[in-house]
Amino acid sequence: MQPIRFDPTCYRIGKRPVYLNSGEFHYFRVPKKDWRRRMKLFRQAGGNCLATYIPWLIHEPEEGCFVFGGEDGVRDLDGFLRTACEEGLYVLARPGPYQYSELAYDGLPGWLCRNYPELRARNWEGKPFRTSSISYLHPLFLEKARAWFRRVAPRIARRTLSRGGPVAFAQLDNEMAGIHEWFGSLDYHPETMGFGRPEGRYTCFLRERYRGDLDALNRAYGTRWTAFEEAGPLKPGGEATPEAIRRRKDYLDFYLGTIAEYARTLAEWLREAGVDVPFVHNSANPNMNALFVETCAALKPDLLLGSDHYYSLGQDWPQMNPTPKYAIQAFSSLEMLRLLGFPPTVHEMPSGSASDWPPILPGDARACYWLNLAYGMKGHNYYIYTGGPNVPGTGMGDEIYDYGAPVGANNEVRPLYHVQKEFGRFLAARPWLALSTREHDFRFALDFEYARAGRYWSGRGEFTFSSAEAHDFLQKGILTTAHCAGLSPAACDPGSDEFLADRATPLVVVSSASMSQARQERLVRFLQRGGKLLLAPVIPELDEQLQPCTVLAEFLGRPTARPARLDYLRALVDGVQLNANGDPFACTRVPEGAEVLGRDEVTGKTLAWRLRTAGGGQVIFLGLRWTHGKRVHSELLTRLLTRLGLKQKLTCSNPNVWTVLRAAGKKRMLFVLNLHSSPQEATVAVRAGARMGRARKFRLPPMTVRCVEV
Amino acid sequence: MQPIRFDPTCYRIGKRPVYLNSGEFHYFRVPKKDWRRRMKLFRQAGGNCLATYIPWLIHEPEEGCFVFGGEDGVRDLDGFLRTACEEGLYVLARPGPYQYSELAYDGLPGWLCRNYPELRARNWEGKPFRTSSISYLHPLFLEKARAWFRRVAPRIARRTLSRGGPVAFAQLDNEMAGIHEWFGSLDYHPETMGFGRPEGRYTCFLRERYRGDLDALNRAYGTRWTAFEEAGPLKPGGEATPEAIRRRKDYLDFYLGTIAEYARTLAEWLREAGVDVPFVHNSANPNMNALFVETCAALKPDLLLGSDHYYSLGQDWPQMNPTPKYAIQAFSSLEMLRLLGFPPTVHEMPSGSASDWPPILPGDARACYWLNLAYGMKGHNYYIYTGGPNVPGTGMGDEIYDYGAPVGANNEVRPLYHVQKEFGRFLAARPWLALSTREHDFRFALDFEYARAGRYWSGRGEFTFSSAEAHDFLQKGILTTAHCAGLSPAACDPGSDEFLADRATPLVVVSSASMSQARQERLVRFLQRGGKLLLAPVIPELDEQLQPCTVLAEFLGRPTARPARLDYLRALVDGVQLNANGDPFACTRVPEGAEVLGRDEVTGKTLAWRLRTAGGGQVIFLGLRWTHGKRVHSELLTRLLTRLGLKQKLTCSNPNVWTVLRAAGKKRMLFVLNLHSSPQEATVAVRAGARMGRARKFRLPPMTVRCVEV
Repeated sequence: MQPIRFDPTCYRIGKRPVYLNSGEFHYFRVPKKDWRRRMKLFRQAGGNCLATYIPWLIHEPEEGCFVFGGEDGVRDLDGFLRTACEEGLYVLARPGPYQYSELAYDGLPGWLCRNYPELRARNWEGKPFRTSSISYLHPLFLEKARAWFRRVAPRIARRTLSRGGPVAFAQLDNEMAGIHEWFGSLDYHPETMGFGRPEGRYTCFLRERYRGDLDALNRAYGTRWTAFEEAGPLKPGGEATPEAIRRRKDYLDFYLGTIAEYARTLAEWLREAGVDVPFVHNSANPNMNALFVETCAALKPDLLLGSDHYYSLGQDWPQMNPTPKYAIQAFSSLEMLRLLGFPPTVHEMPSGSASDWPPILPGDARACYWLNLAYGMKGHNYYIYTGGPNVPGTGMGDEIYDYGAPVGANNEVRPLYHVQKEFGRFLAARPWLALSTREHDFRFALDFEYARAGRYWSGRGEFTFSSAEAHDFLQKGILTTAHCAGLSPAACDPGSDEFLADRATPLVVVSSASMSQARQERLVRFLQRGGKLLLAPVIPELDEQLQPCTVLAEFLGRPTARPARLDYLRALVDGVQLNANGDPFACTRVPEGAEVLGRDEVTGKTLAWRLRTAGGGQVIFLGLRWTHGKRVHSELLTRLLTRLGLKQKLTCSNPNVWTVLRAAGKKRMLFVLNLHSSPQEATVAVRAGARMGRARKFRLPPMTVRCVEV
Repeated sequence: MQPIRFDPTCYRIGKRPVYLNSGEFHYFRVPKKDWRRRMKLFRQAGGNCLATYIPWLIHEPEEGCFVFGGEDGVRDLDGFLRTACEEGLYVLARPGPYQYSELAYDGLPGWLCRNYPELRARNWEGKPFRTSSISYLHPLFLEKARAWFRRVAPRIARRTLSRGGPVAFAQLDNEMAGIHEWFGSLDYHPETMGFGRPEGRYTCFLRERYRGDLDALNRAYGTRWTAFEEAGPLKPGGEATPEAIRRRKDYLDFYLGTIAEYARTLAEWLREAGVDVPFVHNSANPNMNALFVETCAALKPDLLLGSDHYYSLGQDWPQMNPTPKYAIQAFSSLEMLRLLGFPPTVHEMPSGSASDWPPILPGDARACYWLNLAYGMKGHNYYIYTGGPNVPGTGMGDEIYDYGAPVGANNEVRPLYHVQKEFGRFLAARPWLALSTREHDFRFALDFEYARAGRYWSGRGEFTFSSAEAHDFLQKGILTTAHCAGLSPAACDPGSDEFLADRATPLVVVSSASMSQARQERLVRFLQRGGKLLLAPVIPELDEQLQPCTVLAEFLGRPTARPARLDYLRALVDGVQLNANGDPFACTRVPEGAEVLGRDEVTGKTLAWRLRTAGGGQVIFLGLRWTHGKRVHSELLTRLLTRLGLKQKLTCSNPNVWTVLRAAGKKRMLFVLNLHSSPQEATVAVRAGARMGRARKFRLPPMTVRCVEV
């Protein structure tokens, strides 16, 4: 098979751009006699890759007793890989250690969980999580996992592409950090983390972070420790004092460093065994990508991070079908993956569910697939494509792991299969889509630190605006408003210089009280080079460690913005009347030379101003935070961005209908989305050069995505 | 106008059953010149009643300065009432004190909130809530509110039905308790509640509850107080010890008593002024009805409690359109209102939204109206039918309170109007529906105490199962499973003897560790008379004050059920295989003579048994709790109820399509609901006498309710 590679834009076979169309296919569940026919069916549906877990608990049923092969196929990994290869399908091998997959003990061997309770991850008070939540770096767990990898890795290595096999990717673990977060918190296992020990992991981390300066640590934390090893983690949750936030942030950074160390360890074991393919990992959901910054850094360029994008797996999920809120999350996730340098991949794409109800309906799944495509997905893996009986004693759910999959446990072909076939044909007929980017008319800073902040900065405390609030405002405010307004946003990374090059396209930066000095300096450089910036709802005055840092504020003439305690907001901002539709942040000091754009009508407090900076830059400060809910939000955002040079890529008459324009070369495709349960109509016009093209009317049934080449 | 009355079944004009079809119409917002034409439009849409707030802040703009009448109509309450009367529309008058309605200060005068900060409700630590969250019974607030009522009540009284006017109902306040709960907690205002004072309200409440026996209180609370006035409330939240739960439950009961006292006070003021119509009050949402048990008791038979049933008012709501989860909540709410003796009324029915987005779409609203009708609604009030400009300075949101209403601020008739007209015609053509009841095949206990328990019993603690969990299991487990299975449940009140009469229809009782002695005795009587009972997932061993009480357990032969700590559930219960699809509660002791129906396969622990009791009763105990998600849940519930004599009223081939059968006399109507965003098909057969009638196929577009007479 030809090598399949990836670059930041897309996957490629040879030099040909392709879309990765993968489906989850468990050799240990699908009867061997059905492998080939179901693989053929998948290829007919446009599939080019299969993913499979390789469950430790099935291959090491008793400690030290490894079982591979066998007639019945449930342990015949090699037979499966050979068959896939014969059928021309790439394979993404997922050897764990974790699998989840509704397997007992989440795919770990029962003997491991039962016989070694000391491995269990612990909460801050030392209480263990549930049986199968393990502390990843516990030496004994690594020893057992290593033994497993010693057996499984060579079997994968033997069948990689370079050796004529189908294995194109190998996954490191599964949805890391989830097994802790969902069943407890971060992991505080004292032995793994080495609390209280001079050479313990946590002690070393702190020593390095504070460059061996214990006084600096004590100043940051408000403590009086006499040695680094005295520094223990702080109880999660609780008050938002600077000291507490620093300690919790440090612990999160440390913990995510242990995740990276774990991933690197697994990667080394695989490489040692000769597994010479790229590694992948899947964030458990669109909001977890930012947790893997350390992991990506540790493994680059060997790692491809993707994300799982389920919309419902049971009654307790907020939505039952793709919704605009789901779209915003998927969009943010895909943009984050793109910024990290990966072709955005949805490693687990809804395709059935372990719950029979609420159902995954073919029409909803269809909308979900095209929605993800619209927002930039360049590859996916259906979870699951097909199922079958669990190996006795290994299933956590039903005897038959059918999952309502497109191809059922008895080879039945369900309506969902035809949706996937339609999707496959759509992609195959448009190879240029793999190269496409979103045509955007403004940019927004997608700050990885803010995306993590909800885990260490829960309340606002005495700060003007917390980083967790900033991330929330970006998604529920700016991005939702933009989509309702028919704007076309694209993300950029405030932690990289890349965005500096484009001075024409306005940039929206949602800021909290805290922004690193490097980022503040970068924004100053952006303005000095003539960039156009919309900054809201506060101006940072602290760095990422909550130490004073006013680089940006100094450059802007030392304005200050504080939460305004108004009974009810009533403000005219740039001609848009706002009434109690947001939280105001009033400027107690407006920069010299700034033009005031908006005031609260009752108190006269300034809520928005515009300033031309040295170097031809322009900045608009907007002291407002909102959850999108009003037409005036769309008006306001559009008006302010227009002042900064916005040229809308398209117009859409209906705020309930969202639009995405993707282009590559001379090809352009317009995606028109109705993610509501009632029909919608909309008139859409797309910019062609200097002016808008002919308006086109769309009639959209509930939950549909229309695509037209324009 | 003819009197309009109500009884537990429906509204009646004279003796004729009618459906209350009301719409919110604010004389202070709708221009006077448009009143009549919009009223005529509403009548044409089938309306027979208008509701209006009468905002205190508009009629007493400065303290002591009351303004009524005037040419422009914004304060011409009387003109409005006369016009409504001429147009043949009843009026539901809502004089507050609270209004909400996106008015500044929630409809209270600004001077009141600004000048008397001491009135603000307080949290447990004494911290005041937001400006307009008042402590209802604060003497100064009552004094100011009384002055308002002295002016407004006679104006209402003059136009009641008995005096030839249109006023048929008067509302007491608005969504009571919400203004505390949403902006803080329960109210702990020390002056209002009288903490620490021998004759303080709280002291008196405790003295009465513990019959003057301080030792009893100290035993219950684990305290050592030397006088009742030392007893302060406990911090909300926190641990679930018996002592803490008792203290929090007592405080909730006390607080809800103050709500009742407040309502009774307002009622007295209205009665004194000659307002001789029934009072109404609206719970803020389907989950708050149970908070008004004390209020209903205090005001019976003068009060009609209804509930507001919004499905989305903004981006932070869990759903964007009616969903099956919304249906379960609406059903529970309507059943609770019916059990309280009222014709179930939705006092605020979605009709536009203060948010432009997410939108209230006509198709979704249509499904919402018919859904509520299917589940037993006998009257509604559209919030809002029509809007207009806010009186300057009184609006909290936009200048124009348009709300996306069916009739807009400029008299524009929107698509939603036609949906409401269709609904009005549907109701008018079927007057028998007002008399209809749901044909049911099993009953379930809807326990008001369990519905309140989430407010005082947040964790499980050392108890087998908390009352809050029991309420949750009822809704997300039993009722959702039943609707997916095509069963037809109806609620009964375990606190009343009424359910004893029917011995043939099985009764499902979800029990927590706690059930009052009276309820336990009633269940024993039910069995002794030959009743059929399905009891899950535990057997109560405590009374409602968490004191030992094993009346029911004794009668059943002292079985015990404890949470089973199984790694993974794997059980065959009555022939249904369950795998990790629920929380098991194992019987450590099975009653003598009981037939075991199910065991965990690994540990052999008993999870279900059946017993025939003295008097010909039958009880099945099922030690399982689940969130509905699996076909096996439907199978299990159907099978166990069939053992208890279930005769299904209908069968439905598709678990995603829900069905309701309503009947009165010889008329029967089948409602078939698709509350999903994708189309559905289903085959439904309805029982006719001893057997099922001819099956009928339904093709349902997304978000539709079909109705057929059968």
